[in-house]
Amino acid sequence: MTTILNRQVHLVRRPQGAPVPGDFRIVDRPVPVPGEGELLLRNLYLSLDPYMRGRMNDSHGSYAPPYALDAPPGGGTVARVVRSRLDGFAEGDLVVAPDGGWQSFALSDGTGLRRLPNDMAQPSQALGVLGMTGFTAWWGLTAIGRPQAGETLVVSAAGGAVGSVAGQIGRLLGCRVVGIAGGAGKCRQVVEDLGFDACLDHRAPDLAGRLGEAAPDGIDIYFENVGGAVREAVWPRLNTDARVPVCGLVSGYNGVTEDAGGIHALLLSLIVKRIRLQGFLNADHLDSFPDFERQMRGWLDTGQLHAPETIVDGLDQAAAAFVGLFEGHNTGKLVVRLSD
Amino acid sequence: MTTILNRQVHLVRRPQGAPVPGDFRIVDRPVPVPGEGELLLRNLYLSLDPYMRGRMNDSHGSYAPPYALDAPPGGGTVARVVRSRLDGFAEGDLVVAPDGGWQSFALSDGTGLRRLPNDMAQPSQALGVLGMTGFTAWWGLTAIGRPQAGETLVVSAAGGAVGSVAGQIGRLLGCRVVGIAGGAGKCRQVVEDLGFDACLDHRAPDLAGRLGEAAPDGIDIYFENVGGAVREAVWPRLNTDARVPVCGLVSGYNGVTEDAGGIHALLLSLIVKRIRLQGFLNADHLDSFPDFERQMRGWLDTGQLHAPETIVDGLDQAAAAFVGLFEGHNTGKLVVRLSD
Repeated sequence: MTTILNRQVHLVRRPQGAPVPGDFRIVDRPVPVPGEGELLLRNLYLSLDPYMRGRMNDSHGSYAPPYALDAPPGGGTVARVVRSRLDGFAEGDLVVAPDGGWQSFALSDGTGLRRLPNDMAQPSQALGVLGMTGFTAWWGLTAIGRPQAGETLVVSAAGGAVGSVAGQIGRLLGCRVVGIAGGAGKCRQVVEDLGFDACLDHRAPDLAGRLGEAAPDGIDIYFENVGGAVREAVWPRLNTDARVPVCGLVSGYNGVTEDAGGIHALLLSLIVKRIRLQGFLNADHLDSFPDFERQMRGWLDTGQLHAPETIVDGLDQAAAAFVGLFEGHNTGKLVVRLSD
Repeated sequence: MTTILNRQVHLVRRPQGAPVPGDFRIVDRPVPVPGEGELLLRNLYLSLDPYMRGRMNDSHGSYAPPYALDAPPGGGTVARVVRSRLDGFAEGDLVVAPDGGWQSFALSDGTGLRRLPNDMAQPSQALGVLGMTGFTAWWGLTAIGRPQAGETLVVSAAGGAVGSVAGQIGRLLGCRVVGIAGGAGKCRQVVEDLGFDACLDHRAPDLAGRLGEAAPDGIDIYFENVGGAVREAVWPRLNTDARVPVCGLVSGYNGVTEDAGGIHALLLSLIVKRIRLQGFLNADHLDSFPDFERQMRGWLDTGQLHAPETIVDGLDQAAAAFVGLFEGHNTGKLVVRLSD
C-alpha cells in the first residue's frame, strides 16, 4: 500500500535576476488533516503567473507580502474537495482556490473559494480565460482602455495569458489589434489562431518602424504587460487621448530594465497627448466578475474567443515551467496539471 | 500730436535653458487697421504662463506650434474693442482674446473671443481665477483628481496661478491640502492668505521627511505642476488609488530635470498602488466652462476663494516678468497691465 503524500514545491532561495530551477526544491510532506470548519482540497491545476516573481523577492514594494522561504508559494488552483468539515461544501465539489499553492493538497476554511460546476469540461479555464487572467484582461481593457470600434489597440506580451485575451476582446469590440510578442512562431499563432490583425516580433530589428506600418493611424490604447524597450517603441505612436492600462511590466520583473527614456519626457508626453496611464489590480474589481463571466462565456460558447493554454504535467515540472515563463516559452495561459 | 503705435515684444531668439531678457526685444509698429469682418482690440492685460516657454522652442513636441521668431508670442489677453467692423461687437466691448499676444493692439475676426461684462470690476481675473488658469485648476482637480472630503491633496507650485486655485478648491471640497512652494515667505502666504493646511518650502532640506509629517495619512491626490525633485519626494507617499492630474512640469521646461528615478519604478508604482496618472489640457474641456464659472463665482462672491495676482505694469516689463516666472517671483496669477 502506498502512502499518499502532499508533494510541494518550496521556494528555498530568493531568485537573483531571472529565476532558476535551483531556487526551488521538491518536498514531500504528510497530507494535512482538516479541522472542524475546514476542507481538504486536492489541487488539480496550478496557475503560474509573472506576478509571482515579485512576491519571491524579500522586499519588493509590491501589493502583497513576500512568499516565505522553505514553503510552497501561493498561487491560484482548481481543486476538488476530498474531505469536508465545512458546511456548504461536499466531497467532490470543484472549486477555484485563490491560494491553493504549489502543492498537491491544501487546507481551506472556505475563504475566497469560488465554486465551479462539478462536471466542468475544461476546469483549467477557470484559472485562465474564465479566471483571474481573463478578468484582468477584460477589466483593464474595458474599464481603463475603454475601446471604441475603429480604434487601434496594441497589446504587449500578446501571446501570453492576459495579452492573448485582451487582444481578442479588443477585436470583438471592433478595434484594430496589433500584438507584440517574442518570436516569429508565436507571432504567427497570435495572428492565425487568435485573429489579431498583426503581430510584431520584438526580437527582430526595428520594432518602432514596423509598428508605424502596422498601426498607421497611431495607437489609441496600449495594453501594457511588458515595459522596457517595447514600451519605448510604442510611446511615440500614442495618439492624443490615448489610454494605457498598466497591467504588468514583465520585462523588469527580474531586475533588469532596458528603458532608456527619462521620467520628465514620459510625464510631458502625458500632457502633450492627454494620455491616461493607470495601474490596476484585478482583485479590486471583483464586483464586476459576474459581468465578465457572462460576456466571456458568451464569446467562448460561440467560438468567437479562443483560449490557448500551455499545460505542463506534474508538480515536478512547475519550477522549470515558471522559469520558462520569463523566457516566453508558453503561449496562452500556463497551468500545471497536478491530478485528474 | 503723438502717433499711437502698436508696441510689441518680439521673440528674437529661442531661449537656451532659462529664458533671459535678451531673448526678447521691444518693437513699435503701426496700429493695424481692421478689415471688413474684423475688430481692432486694445489689450488691457496680458497673461504670462509657464506653458509659453515650451512654445518658444523650435521643436518641442508640444500640443501647439512654436512661436515665430521676430513676432510677438501669442498669449491670452483681456482687451477692449476700439474699432468694430464685425457684427455683434461694438466699440467699448470687453473681451478675452485667447491669442491677443504680447502687444498693445491686436486684430481679431471674433474667433474664440469670450465676452465680459463691460464694467467688470477686476478684468484681470478673467485671465486668472475666472479664466483659463482657474479653469485648468478646477477641471484637473475635479475631473481627474476627484477629491473626496477627508482626503489629502498635495499641490506643487502652490503659490503659482494654477496651484493657488487648485489647493483652495481642494479645501472648499473638504480635503486636507498641503502645498509645496519655493521659499519660506511664499509658503507663509499660501497658508495665511489662501488657507492651505500646510505649505512646504522645497528649497529647504528634507522635503520628503517634512512631507511625511504634513501628510501623515499619505497622499490621495497629487496635483502635479512641477515634476523633478518635488515629484520624487511626493511619490513614495502616494496612497493606493491615488490620482495624479498632470498639469505641468515646470521644473523641466528649461531643459534641466532633477528627477533621478527610473521609468520602470514609476510605472511599477502605478500597478502596486493602482495610481491613475493623467495629462490634460484645459482647451479640450471648454464645454465645462459654464459650470466652472458658476461654481467659482459663487466662491469668489462669498469670499471663500482668494485670487492673488502679481500685476506688472507695462509691456516693457513683460520679458523680465516672464523670466521671473521660472524663478518663482510671482505669487498667484502673473499678468501684465498694458492699458487701463
